[in-house]
Amino acid sequence: MYVLHMNVGEGETSYAKNSLIQKKIIYVGSSMMEAAIFNILLEVKPKSMGVADLGCSSGPNALTAISRIIHMVDAASQKMGLPVPEIRVSLNDLPGNDFNGVFKSLPELYNNLKDDYGIEDCYVWGVPGSFYGRLFPGHSLHFVHSSSSLHWLSQVPLDLNPRVGTHLNKDKIYISKSSSMSVIKAYQQQFQDDFSLFLRSRAKEMVSKGRMVLSFMGRRSPNPCADEACYQWELLARALMSLALDGLVEKEKIDSFNAPYYAPSPEEVKCQVEKEGSFVVVDVKSFGIEWDDGDWTNCKISSGNRVAKTIRAVVEPMLENHFHLGVEMMDELFRRYAKIIDDCFLETKFKYINLIISFVRKD
Amino acid sequence: MYVLHMNVGEGETSYAKNSLIQKKIIYVGSSMMEAAIFNILLEVKPKSMGVADLGCSSGPNALTAISRIIHMVDAASQKMGLPVPEIRVSLNDLPGNDFNGVFKSLPELYNNLKDDYGIEDCYVWGVPGSFYGRLFPGHSLHFVHSSSSLHWLSQVPLDLNPRVGTHLNKDKIYISKSSSMSVIKAYQQQFQDDFSLFLRSRAKEMVSKGRMVLSFMGRRSPNPCADEACYQWELLARALMSLALDGLVEKEKIDSFNAPYYAPSPEEVKCQVEKEGSFVVVDVKSFGIEWDDGDWTNCKISSGNRVAKTIRAVVEPMLENHFHLGVEMMDELFRRYAKIIDDCFLETKFKYINLIISFVRKD
Repeated sequence: MYVLHMNVGEGETSYAKNSLIQKKIIYVGSSMMEAAIFNILLEVKPKSMGVADLGCSSGPNALTAISRIIHMVDAASQKMGLPVPEIRVSLNDLPGNDFNGVFKSLPELYNNLKDDYGIEDCYVWGVPGSFYGRLFPGHSLHFVHSSSSLHWLSQVPLDLNPRVGTHLNKDKIYISKSSSMSVIKAYQQQFQDDFSLFLRSRAKEMVSKGRMVLSFMGRRSPNPCADEACYQWELLARALMSLALDGLVEKEKIDSFNAPYYAPSPEEVKCQVEKEGSFVVVDVKSFGIEWDDGDWTNCKISSGNRVAKTIRAVVEPMLENHFHLGVEMMDELFRRYAKIIDDCFLETKFKYINLIISFVRKD
Repeated sequence: MYVLHMNVGEGETSYAKNSLIQKKIIYVGSSMMEAAIFNILLEVKPKSMGVADLGCSSGPNALTAISRIIHMVDAASQKMGLPVPEIRVSLNDLPGNDFNGVFKSLPELYNNLKDDYGIEDCYVWGVPGSFYGRLFPGHSLHFVHSSSSLHWLSQVPLDLNPRVGTHLNKDKIYISKSSSMSVIKAYQQQFQDDFSLFLRSRAKEMVSKGRMVLSFMGRRSPNPCADEACYQWELLARALMSLALDGLVEKEKIDSFNAPYYAPSPEEVKCQVEKEGSFVVVDVKSFGIEWDDGDWTNCKISSGNRVAKTIRAVVEPMLENHFHLGVEMMDELFRRYAKIIDDCFLETKFKYINLIISFVRKD
């Protein structure tokens, strides 16, 4: 079992304060979401529409996607001269997510929907559990959305689990240019198993002609070792190794840690979709996001520090769970990480690749 | 707005450690719940069955009712030779409830259901919001359960709100023998408004022939000032007044506090059901529960102290919100309350009256 949740609370290192990139990604997906919703209304004409946001997280982004989706359903229905359907919204994340925080913002969401758009026939609930498995009743969903979540695997690839074999990925924490084929294959296998379980589960939960828009970190290159897919982990491994060199972290701890993450290519995704057989890929877009691409109000810190904060908000809980560094050593790790990024940035500004893929459930 | 949630956490004064009476109440309702579920399966034969627990709270009782309901559906289906339906379970409470704690116990519930009963087709989620208003999609529920929640009003009766009028209920915090008719009427009006809104909301959410079992504090006597309905509040008011006499609490604070609570008689409930018109009352039972009726492992403290702990776990948040006593003064208040109860118990052992009422949704 690994710890996968964002940094809690509202402090300097919290996900709440360091999630602008994830917010931007939700907005970039808007036109594909609009098209999907338009087609659902046109083809299915539901009286009651089931919508799910998978991996909603907490903090300011938690209700962003669903509030946009609700507005889109309302606007599209009116444009098409259809009655606005009753909207059933499921907010999903793992049981460790801060649902309490999300639920405290719900009354405000309901008020906004009512006052600004006259929408009252809308019901929101929280569904705790892993989306790698069944979460919802059969044939209950018309639209499934997920943003910045599906690059997380259900677990560290089994073959890389130190309890199973010896350390196959020494000095590294994800696929890297020096990774052996067995490391790459272990990651690919876990991605394939997870993603096909994801598709099988959603296939049962969605109505026919239901639609799904998934957005997650990926790559354009067919090569899983391409910089765009793994360079942020490469540099984090370097920061960890520099702590090990100074005797501040056991090297064995680094050897035994592997991130439960995979950045697939569009072809890898399509391949799993075809194998599983319940969905058709309608549209695929990829776009690059500069590592330092937040709308930063605090411009006094370096680019590397800003990037490090974004990454820290997401990976700190799983690092802490494995390395037990404590706050001060964690600060030191991310200071070194920031410095390494700043040095790299003198030559190249790196980008993440985000994939947005639209699917339709076959009849 | 008032604060209505139980004492959080797992400490000595927590609801988690002081909710045995509420647990017992859930068990006492079992036969009525079984009958309701049997009739739903017989008359509606749902393929997918919607179940809601309203006011689930947190702590050890939060999943007690729904896990019993799921077992009952499973057992009754098998007994009747029907396929076990897919079960959709909504756990409801106010947005301030500790849903995070409840959700952390869910994986264990799913494991038990699967391992002990082979039940896999069951989906549980959390629905934050007030049951005095719409919570669920239309026609989505077959069985509604609520235990130890409906004696809480949606708000302090408006006419007793100090911002509206002068203090009408001086020295008291609920209806008492010395209350004026205007105080009693204000409480009755709030109960009627709330309960009829509750019925109207559920009527829209439930399928025809759906069933509802509600269990809450009430009274047998037609007199709203009967001891069985209000003596616990009378004694708490005495404890508060003794603090005021010693200059430890402002008397004005007591004059301006009124509990958002009402213990109705079966007749008052039936009257609202008939007025609203969507439901028929199938069965009403009342039973007395001794104030000191927990299965106490700690027998070293007095009866009064045990009663005071049960009450404190439930009312402390709303008292703290109004009186701002701090921990030490709160301890003192409940020490005095315990003493007052022990003194009373020399003459009489008091009982609460719990009503359990079964309803069917008309066609």
